[in-house]
Order: sequence, then C-alpha cells, then structure tokens
Amino acid sequence: MQRIGIMGAGAWGSALAIAAARAGRAVILQGRDPQAMRAMAEQRENRRRLPGVRLPEAVEPTGEIERLGDCEAILLVVPAQVLRAALDTLAPHLPTETPLVICAKGIERSSGALMSEIVSERFSKQPQAVLSGPTFATEVGRGLPTAVSLASRDPALADDLVAALGSRTFRPYSADDPIGIEIGGAVKNVVAIACGIVTGRELGENARASLITRGLAEITRLALAKGGRAQSLMGLGGLGDLTLSCTSTQSRNYAHGLALGRRQDAPAGDDKPLTEGVATAAAVVALARRLGIEMPICEAVNAVLHGGETIEEAIELLLSRPFKAELS
Amino acid sequence: MQRIGIMGAGAWGSALAIAAARAGRAVILQGRDPQAMRAMAEQRENRRRLPGVRLPEAVEPTGEIERLGDCEAILLVVPAQVLRAALDTLAPHLPTETPLVICAKGIERSSGALMSEIVSERFSKQPQAVLSGPTFATEVGRGLPTAVSLASRDPALADDLVAALGSRTFRPYSADDPIGIEIGGAVKNVVAIACGIVTGRELGENARASLITRGLAEITRLALAKGGRAQSLMGLGGLGDLTLSCTSTQSRNYAHGLALGRRQDAPAGDDKPLTEGVATAAAVVALARRLGIEMPICEAVNAVLHGGETIEEAIELLLSRPFKAELS
Repeated sequence: MQRIGIMGAGAWGSALAIAAARAGRAVILQGRDPQAMRAMAEQRENRRRLPGVRLPEAVEPTGEIERLGDCEAILLVVPAQVLRAALDTLAPHLPTETPLVICAKGIERSSGALMSEIVSERFSKQPQAVLSGPTFATEVGRGLPTAVSLASRDPALADDLVAALGSRTFRPYSADDPIGIEIGGAVKNVVAIACGIVTGRELGENARASLITRGLAEITRLALAKGGRAQSLMGLGGLGDLTLSCTSTQSRNYAHGLALGRRQDAPAGDDKPLTEGVATAAAVVALARRLGIEMPICEAVNAVLHGGETIEEAIELLLSRPFKAELS
Repeated sequence: MQRIGIMGAGAWGSALAIAAARAGRAVILQGRDPQAMRAMAEQRENRRRLPGVRLPEAVEPTGEIERLGDCEAILLVVPAQVLRAALDTLAPHLPTETPLVICAKGIERSSGALMSEIVSERFSKQPQAVLSGPTFATEVGRGLPTAVSLASRDPALADDLVAALGSRTFRPYSADDPIGIEIGGAVKNVVAIACGIVTGRELGENARASLITRGLAEITRLALAKGGRAQSLMGLGGLGDLTLSCTSTQSRNYAHGLALGRRQDAPAGDDKPLTEGVATAAAVVALARRLGIEMPICEAVNAVLHGGETIEEAIELLLSRPFKAELS
C-alpha cells in the first residue's frame, strides 16, 4: 500500500495522516469544509484541531471526497454519530476492493449499531479493519511513541496495514478480533465520563481505579455478547485505551465528567468537538438492555446525562452497588 | 471476628487499623518502635506516616508484639523485605488457628519467595488470606471509597474477613486466587517504576498506557506460572492496583521512576519508607528467569536499578522491543 486516504480531518485524522506520511506513504487527508482544507494546505498545519504540528509534504489536504477514490486503503476518522452520512458521500467514489479502516470510536445512538455494522450495512463486501488503542492525537502528531491494535478478520489485511502505517514511533500490532477492539474503543468513553465525575467530586484515586476495573469488566461482558473475545480487552484497544481515557484531562470525555463532578458547566461550545461518550452512553445502555447484559457504570452515566438523575444519585450507583464476588 | 491485630504501623497498617475500627472491630495496632507507638497512643494520630487522620478510640497502638496473640485475625503489614524477620518475632505469640492476612506487597529479594510462601514456610498450617487492591493509605485513612480483593483458598475465611473489615467506604470483595492477587500487588510496583521513567522522560501518556497494558500481560504470565489465574489479574488486585500505581505521583514507585526519568536523585532518605519495587525488580527478574518467563519491562527496570544500564538504553528496551502480534 503506497497511497492512504483519510476521511475526516479533525485532530485524530490529521495525526493519522502525519503518522502515515512518517511511515513513507502518500496521504490524501480529506475534510468536509473546503475552505478549512485549503487553509490547511496553505499553512501546512491543522491550526484549529492540531496546532503546532507541521503536516509533512506527503500529506495532501483536500475538500474533494473523490480524491479518496484511488487510495489503496481509506481510514474512516469522522465522528461516530455522523459516520453513516459520511459513507453516503463516499459511496459513489469507492471501489469495492478498497479496505476501510474504522478509526472512529462510538456506537450510533439512533440505531445501537457499531461502526463496523454501519460499514457492513452500506458496503457489504468491503474489506474492513479497526484501528484502536491509547492515542492522544497531539502525542501522535508530535511523534511520541504510540502503539495501537490493528484488527481484522483478514490477517493478511491486518499485516498489510501494519506495514503501511507502522514507523519507529507509531507501532500498530495486528490482531484478529475487530469486534472486541471496537467495543473497547467505544465504551471506554462512557467509563471515562464516570471516572471524571468521581474524581471531580474529589472521591479519590482509589475509587477511580476501582471504577476502571469494573468498567473493563462490563466492557468485556458487552464484547462477549457481541461475539468478541475477553482477551482482546486485555490489550491496547481495551485496557490500554481505557486507562488512558480515565486518567488524563487530555481526554475530552474524562474532562466532561470532571466538570460534571465539580458542578461546572461541561466544556462545550460550537468550536469544541463533541464529547463522544455522551451519545454513546445512551446507545450502549439501550444495547446492553436489549442483550440482557448488566452495565451499571454505563447505566449510571446515562442516567445523569440523559435521565435527569443527580450526580449524587449516580455516585451512589457507581460506588455502592453491592455485589458478592469481585469477578462474578 | 471482633478483635483484629495489625502487625506494622506504617501508613498502610495505620489506615487498615482505622478501616477495621470503622467496621466496628477492636484493633491492636502493633509497631516495632515502642516510643513511636506510645506517641501514637497519646496523640491519637500517626503523625509521621499518616498525618492528619485521627485514630478512632477502638484502635490501640502498642509496641508489644504479644498483644497480637489474642486477636482473631492478624493483618501482616510490614515491608516485604522484612516480613520473614517479623514473623520470627511473632511466632512465640501466635496460636496455630489464627488467620494471617498478607497485606505486604513484594517478593523477597534474597530468596525470590512470595509473601505467602514465606508465611507457609514459617507457619505451615496457619490459615492464610491476601488483601490487595488499589489503595492509597491516605485515602483509606480519610474514609474515601476504596475496594479491595480479599483472597483465600478457604472461601469461608475470605467471607469472614470481608464481614469483619468491610464498611460503607472500605469494601473488600472475596476472591479465591491468593497467588494471582499477590503477584499483581508485588509486580505492579516494578511496572510503576517503568511508567515513571517513561513519563519523567516526557514520552507521553500514550506510551505510558501501552506500558501498563504490556505490564499487565507480563504480570499475568508470571501469575499463571505460579499457579494463579489470568482472570484474577483483571480485578482490583491486578488491573486496579496497577492502574493506580502507574498513573499517580502518590505512588512512591511511580515517583521513583519519574525522578529517574528526569535525571533527578530518587526521592529517598532515612525518613522515607523504602521503595518496594526496587527490591522486587531484582527478585521478579530472577524468578522469571528461573521459570522461563519473558518479562521485558521488569528486565529493563532491573537493568537500570541494579545492572548499570542507562535510562536511554532502558527506554529503548521498554518501547522498541519488536513483537509480532499484540497478544501472543
């Protein structure tokens, strides 16, 4: 693979474009706002979302979606809640053999669908992979060492993508359980909000560590119910990503929870990217109920965000729910 | 169980004494320095190790080890490297049926023995349990919510201890794999030093999250080789404790690594409790080699601490070691 397309030019899309260029690839970085993309091409920088990081010459920012048509793989890096609409715009330009790499994290609120399910619905035969792991975009942009899972049911595709995207500081590892990795990436945002709430209310780091632990257990239950494997959640796309999101104010979702816990207004506004876990909280709770899985942390977060529950009630739910044996 | 003995009056011993008192127990808190224990009894506070937290009336600080003799369970909270010597002083006063609860975390450097192995060697028939989890002592002392694993091969003993020590803010959960929990508690200190080194060298949070992930994998390999179960490492005594120690400057081991990474002198001195991971690093590497298990993170930390390796070489080992599939 020599030519990589990136659909979505936010912080993560831009960082992935830079990583692919560092790996020696030619990169088409496509965003939906033509004016912003022209500015990016002129300034050689995504000043709004990834300021201070120079775009290598091999990255070509563009607003024209048809430019993705001749790429050998396309990374989907649009926000989860708009992926379906984005695929509609991509469809006319997409050869059936081009692999699609899901880099968006989340569950569609309106349908409860995973990103991979949305892609399969729209393009039933397209080769698919999922890229996920502990990745703050600014660190990847700056060339700090980062490792991710690259999972596909087709091991040859995973290996090709590892070879195409890997460099000394950005190291994808091939894996074969895209569902597990995808669910890890989606649901960790909801657990990060919970951890933010508890930390914002100054309940301590012991409590947060317990929530992370129980959070991974409930993520694993959902992954198993959807056909994923528990072991995948022990890896970069599970535990790695969860730990990162639940312990750093660089995480929007954690910061959102912190603000809630401190009774501040959530850090929002027109200029801010949306906090993915807010939408996914509702989706994951609906999905868990449909599948008959207990996900008390996601339930508590959803009750605060969408059910009118107070923070106090949610904290009670998060910390005091009795259970007999730790790992039952 | 009404009467609980605590052997070791450092920060963690004192916090556990307070937790047991809050659970309604009478507590003998025994320390080896009679003068310090008298001061503690008068001041109703462990001013040196747990300042600012009042000892409840039900806690009786004492320097007299024979006072532990009529307790219904004894929590062993002395540092790992001196547990063997401490047991010798306890032996003359210990009824054979009194359960011993291992709360010290570490592996004996001179022998490679786990704490449970040291206890079994000395008292072959004594009932045993392990208490471990994400627990900063100051938070437990202040009554912030904390959950721990309480593991024993005897489920009835685990349940009795859960009932004796549990309160609204300190919640033990019974488990049945003491080896897994014990290894989680011991080796996380070494991984925390590694995470501190990488963070101190400003390599970013993505890199730290990857180290935590790979760290849990190598801890799990050791636990399996010693007869523990992988699933236990997904719980409070594994992932929970590891995450806490690897992301907070409250952790002495993490702080020690941070200082190394920043090329500062390690935070030591006569008045500071020792950094357990420094001794355990050597022990765990020797043990892993004997058992034929790969533990590259512990190897790298040990090479810096005891092998004359530079931080740069260790970081290269920590971050660049090639491996094929993430979870192989």
